[in-house]
Amino acid sequence: MEIINGGVTAPQGFFATGVACGIKKDGKKDLAIVCSEDPAAVAGVFTTNIVKGNSLLVTMENIKNGYASAVVINSGNANACNGSDGYENALEIVSYAASLLDCSPQEILIGSTGVIGLPIDVDKIKTGLDEAVAEMSSDGGSEASEAIMTTDTIKKEIAVEFEIGGQKVRIGAMAKGSGMIHPNMATMIGIITTDANISRKLLDNALKKSVDKSFNRISVDGETSVCDMVIALANGLADNEPIVSESKSYNIFCDALEYVCTYLAKLIAKDGEGATKLIEIKVKGAATREDAYKAAAAVAKSPLVKTAVFGNDANWGRIITAAGYSGAAFDPCKVDIWLGDIHVCSKGNALEYDENQAKNAIASSEVSILIDFNIGEYEDRYWTCDFSYDYIKINASYRT
Amino acid sequence: MEIINGGVTAPQGFFATGVACGIKKDGKKDLAIVCSEDPAAVAGVFTTNIVKGNSLLVTMENIKNGYASAVVINSGNANACNGSDGYENALEIVSYAASLLDCSPQEILIGSTGVIGLPIDVDKIKTGLDEAVAEMSSDGGSEASEAIMTTDTIKKEIAVEFEIGGQKVRIGAMAKGSGMIHPNMATMIGIITTDANISRKLLDNALKKSVDKSFNRISVDGETSVCDMVIALANGLADNEPIVSESKSYNIFCDALEYVCTYLAKLIAKDGEGATKLIEIKVKGAATREDAYKAAAAVAKSPLVKTAVFGNDANWGRIITAAGYSGAAFDPCKVDIWLGDIHVCSKGNALEYDENQAKNAIASSEVSILIDFNIGEYEDRYWTCDFSYDYIKINASYRT
Repeated sequence: MEIINGGVTAPQGFFATGVACGIKKDGKKDLAIVCSEDPAAVAGVFTTNIVKGNSLLVTMENIKNGYASAVVINSGNANACNGSDGYENALEIVSYAASLLDCSPQEILIGSTGVIGLPIDVDKIKTGLDEAVAEMSSDGGSEASEAIMTTDTIKKEIAVEFEIGGQKVRIGAMAKGSGMIHPNMATMIGIITTDANISRKLLDNALKKSVDKSFNRISVDGETSVCDMVIALANGLADNEPIVSESKSYNIFCDALEYVCTYLAKLIAKDGEGATKLIEIKVKGAATREDAYKAAAAVAKSPLVKTAVFGNDANWGRIITAAGYSGAAFDPCKVDIWLGDIHVCSKGNALEYDENQAKNAIASSEVSILIDFNIGEYEDRYWTCDFSYDYIKINASYRT
Repeated sequence: MEIINGGVTAPQGFFATGVACGIKKDGKKDLAIVCSEDPAAVAGVFTTNIVKGNSLLVTMENIKNGYASAVVINSGNANACNGSDGYENALEIVSYAASLLDCSPQEILIGSTGVIGLPIDVDKIKTGLDEAVAEMSSDGGSEASEAIMTTDTIKKEIAVEFEIGGQKVRIGAMAKGSGMIHPNMATMIGIITTDANISRKLLDNALKKSVDKSFNRISVDGETSVCDMVIALANGLADNEPIVSESKSYNIFCDALEYVCTYLAKLIAKDGEGATKLIEIKVKGAATREDAYKAAAAVAKSPLVKTAVFGNDANWGRIITAAGYSGAAFDPCKVDIWLGDIHVCSKGNALEYDENQAKNAIASSEVSILIDFNIGEYEDRYWTCDFSYDYIKINASYRT
């Protein structure tokens, strides 16, 4: 597998762009389109929040068809909690895009991200769609990834190339997400494109498995929103032998997909609102996978761990404390903790370590925390970021 | 019931003080003692964290005797995760206090709060105890409440007087807690004294009930620590007809105890690290009490709600979003939300409200958020504080 340039338009037969249609007050790009030459097999994972945005609801309905031709995403307005008009508006946007692309409205997926509770300006989006459909191209992926950003500070895209049965296959992807980040789902939108020839069912399996190991293993602030989704589109243009069973080809595809999702997930954690560092938390030696997961998630969510990392304070007491309230079963007297390479806690008790070395381990832009329960064989990992003044700054005045 | 001056020494037969024994680097008071003239019936509620501090472990053991003569609390060092010495040290302190007070070591309870992972200096505490036992008095409650503070900015104490069968009875209390605040238990220590004559079993019932409605309904940052406890001591000196059943007298006692606990709990939330406001979240109209609890707790824990309140931003979208991921069952299309008196959301959708009025409702030092699910009869409430720059500041460099 090789990492190649580009994002969602790297695979064959995908066109995309991003335009500014006037939803964002600052005139930045706020409307993205990703379009497949041929209808693509489609799979999706959606927020588990019981409050759901209107665009998300339309997409959850349309995805049942199993095939899609395009995804339209606006940023700046979540199209959520804004009355029954919101659902009608999402349908109107979908119909308009279908007319421009000469396909059925059921083949259009739609995403919206931004402020909740405000009406969405359909006319602006229609005008934007005119422009976007005219401009979209096979190297417009980067523009699309820019147009879905909200508080993101960097564009998030990646593409990889690999072989299946001698045929070159590509996966491209983009994502947005920065605050309100948490599993199932984070406040994120991810669009994955591939020219692989893969059945819808296996695409769906592969996506769920990859999302579970990547986007479901990051947390910025423990919040999940109402508009979150990861969509995968597979148009088959790579012309590989169709993947229709859990074969070796399927495993190759899954590995590549997981790589792409993990790359973007870590990028989201690292670009967390106000973040200055990416933190990886690994829990090993647990009696069950669930225990490892619970402990890693609790440490990743802990504001006290995250502020300590921000302040370069090797306060491992907060790490064992968070593990302690996580619900994971372990024996506090058997726990070892490392900050980077520095062994700070052995069998639940403080070691004599060099405070400056520990500080240095935490002062890095990528911090690793390892917790070993020393009672079993299971492990899990989680990514998060530190918690800084800027998180407060960004979120104290998000709407104003 | 009447609120009276004082704290833990307001009830008859209690003596207390706080001294500086040198654990806190800044020379502030760091050792408190609360002592009852006669051995008192005792009840306690302890952290649910599976990591437990050494002092807490000793107290959990000693409390099984049912009676206690004194509580010794140090601040500045949690006596946790610091090796097997930590437990021995706690026992040594308890024995020393018992020798000074001429009672059995099993009658001494001990609490420690502060940094995790450091050895505790027993000699400093012994010297401090010499001084404290010599100085303690029937008006020393306030000094004791000062000596248990860590990042608290205000002392937290209260006393009430009420009648049981014509006899005057008093309850006094003090608490510490500011960050790492969350139910079951928060990073808090609470000591409640009363001269009521009440059986140990009913004191225990009353304490659990009151704690559940007060200290278990606050959150500053979703963290629980390893040293948390609420202890109630009842020495019977008010000479009321003994409370030995769930009688009218018991209910009067419970009401007073709940008042005292709620007062301190709200004070802890209001004094949350970096807090500028107290936020009350009430959920009503829920199908079950559990649903109301889950939604109120999720909103109280949401960093996005708390930063919005800090920024005076009436961003109710974040409130319904947090309720949505709380696990509470409700119909998003039936939800009403009020910020103070301002009705901002009706049946799940934005109302046209005056943004300035909503801002004013949130700019208050005490903010109320009301969520009505409109589907049932159950309600619950929760207190929290806003999330400010100072939370980060305080916690980024707690140990340094």
